[in-house]
Amino acid sequence: MKAAIHGVGTSDFAKQPQLSAGDLVATAVREALADAGVGSVEAAYVGTCFGEPGIAPRTLHRLGIVEIPIVTVENACASGTTAFHLACGAVASGQYERVLALGVETMTSHFSGAIVPELTDAEGASGMALPSLYAMSASRYLANGWVTLEQMAQVSVKNHAHALGNPRAQYGGALSVDEVLSSRPIADPLTLLQCCPITDGAAAVVVGRPRGGAREVPVRSCQLSSGALWDYRTDHAWGYELIGSVAARAYEAAGIGPADIDVFEVHDAFTIGEIVTTEALGLAEEGGGGELVQSGRTAIGGEQPVNPSGGLLSRGHPLGATGTAQVAEVVWQLRGEADERQVAGARVGVVETMGGGASGVDGNAAVVAVLGG
Amino acid sequence: MKAAIHGVGTSDFAKQPQLSAGDLVATAVREALADAGVGSVEAAYVGTCFGEPGIAPRTLHRLGIVEIPIVTVENACASGTTAFHLACGAVASGQYERVLALGVETMTSHFSGAIVPELTDAEGASGMALPSLYAMSASRYLANGWVTLEQMAQVSVKNHAHALGNPRAQYGGALSVDEVLSSRPIADPLTLLQCCPITDGAAAVVVGRPRGGAREVPVRSCQLSSGALWDYRTDHAWGYELIGSVAARAYEAAGIGPADIDVFEVHDAFTIGEIVTTEALGLAEEGGGGELVQSGRTAIGGEQPVNPSGGLLSRGHPLGATGTAQVAEVVWQLRGEADERQVAGARVGVVETMGGGASGVDGNAAVVAVLGG
Repeated sequence: MKAAIHGVGTSDFAKQPQLSAGDLVATAVREALADAGVGSVEAAYVGTCFGEPGIAPRTLHRLGIVEIPIVTVENACASGTTAFHLACGAVASGQYERVLALGVETMTSHFSGAIVPELTDAEGASGMALPSLYAMSASRYLANGWVTLEQMAQVSVKNHAHALGNPRAQYGGALSVDEVLSSRPIADPLTLLQCCPITDGAAAVVVGRPRGGAREVPVRSCQLSSGALWDYRTDHAWGYELIGSVAARAYEAAGIGPADIDVFEVHDAFTIGEIVTTEALGLAEEGGGGELVQSGRTAIGGEQPVNPSGGLLSRGHPLGATGTAQVAEVVWQLRGEADERQVAGARVGVVETMGGGASGVDGNAAVVAVLGG
Repeated sequence: MKAAIHGVGTSDFAKQPQLSAGDLVATAVREALADAGVGSVEAAYVGTCFGEPGIAPRTLHRLGIVEIPIVTVENACASGTTAFHLACGAVASGQYERVLALGVETMTSHFSGAIVPELTDAEGASGMALPSLYAMSASRYLANGWVTLEQMAQVSVKNHAHALGNPRAQYGGALSVDEVLSSRPIADPLTLLQCCPITDGAAAVVVGRPRGGAREVPVRSCQLSSGALWDYRTDHAWGYELIGSVAARAYEAAGIGPADIDVFEVHDAFTIGEIVTTEALGLAEEGGGGELVQSGRTAIGGEQPVNPSGGLLSRGHPLGATGTAQVAEVVWQLRGEADERQVAGARVGVVETMGGGASGVDGNAAVVAVLGG
């Protein structure tokens, strides 16, 4: 794929209802354009889940980004990486020389009232919100003997520790396994500190044709797919097969395997999510993700760090902005600009996001991108 | 551009709250796939304004359209044509052989309660909803002596008469100019019958590489652009410059001029909208759109019919579905399949949609596509 990342930028990730979507976008986009050393783009793809109609032109026009194709895209939690996928495809296929992929979400203002499921939302109406879906995966893993409660908690301990080195993260902290397990129950066996927080934020990526600059990061592949219909008889946890198949295609397109990857930013909306995802990405056998995190191999200082930014659990999860923030983190890592959380010698990085529901009528989607090298 | 339309399909356009978005999508997509003679697509772009997050996989998965990239896109009233623009670009640039562009909106259920503007929506909070914006254009045209009340009403008379030949239209009717002008005032000088209705509907287009089939319609160009910042000192009506510039690029890319076009589907959300748009598209000089419609030239039987489907005013305006429905109508016209509303000998058709707000901080977007020939 002949596309490269020329620049990245993000807002802080926090509960910051005093800032509008436009404020968050302005911070992220200005930083990304300055980082790329450019003043304009030819098109913009803007990922958001709950942004009101018109959010993309409304936020970009005040920055003088006008008179170009501007498209808002939604793909649940993968909205940001879907925008990045479209941006990479448009550049790699020759439609544009330089475009913007942006993600933004103002979660605190959107969810300030009571959350009432839509009548047409079978999952919401039956209580099968996302914590419940992930809790079922966790219960299955526990029942299989594939993970322990302590191993799940270790994901949260690791990612909160990583976030201590990330000044833009929402909740860094030096937690113990006991503190994680004794936090408030949300959806058994998941406790509060095993669930991503509500976050406001924006993140931007300038994607363009390779120019050969020293700080430029090649996009080696970026695959997107919607999932299959959910088959409740499957032996696999939710998302395992989809992430595995998308990753296999992304690795093949990039000409790499899991052992070649130095750093990962993955979708740890819940602790069990990171465990299943690291397995699907080939870092461990199925059922081996718990031991993997316990081994320290996926912590900064280990051989293949996962979520050095703090991940969704600790950097925060402003839905539409998460994917482009993951891309920004990997770019900083591959350039050696990640300061206290730097993964030494990182040359190849992977971004993975999964969004959506799980039932037979709803659907999920995943994006896997291979960057650098 | 090396893309062609292989098939189209739509639901009925009506107030039909008993049907879900999934029901409407199923009707439109099944018809489009059957029309194309295919069973699958490689990617799907789904335009909607108010569809809830996840609407695209949720509605497509139940049709067995799974394990492909599915992207929801929003671009105000141009959401459907934005999906079509992405679909054409993806095929023409070689990313896919065959994809789906879909639009869907369930307006009656979304707007069943009181409509309260978002606090961040400066236009809504100040009463500058879209009827008001169009009413200001109408007032300016009246003040300039560029249009008469009767000429504006004639747009509604024409499009309601056209819709009598369209069994899927919401409100066909044999209206008089007096009936239009004496209907309830909405935003002076616009009356009820000069405003598009609330509509539920879906429309789908299968876009693929040219196969040379007899019923295939070439996409000669499809341009999308966001507007400039609104300059209140301009002498032009809202949208005139944006539509004109996008049309100029679309015509140039297709190698045609306005005189070469046999049939138009344009964004007549309000009567004055069609008048300004026909001028911007080059069918008349600026200020000559009123005389144009009065002359009968844009009625079926005239030299360059505009909105033979009935347009947004009469077919209805389910926001995200409008653009793909416009494409479907032009395809039927170019194939000679438009029955009672057939434009004789139509070989080249144009679709135009404009969406979004008008103020300095909001933004509008327009799509112009040239089909056939």
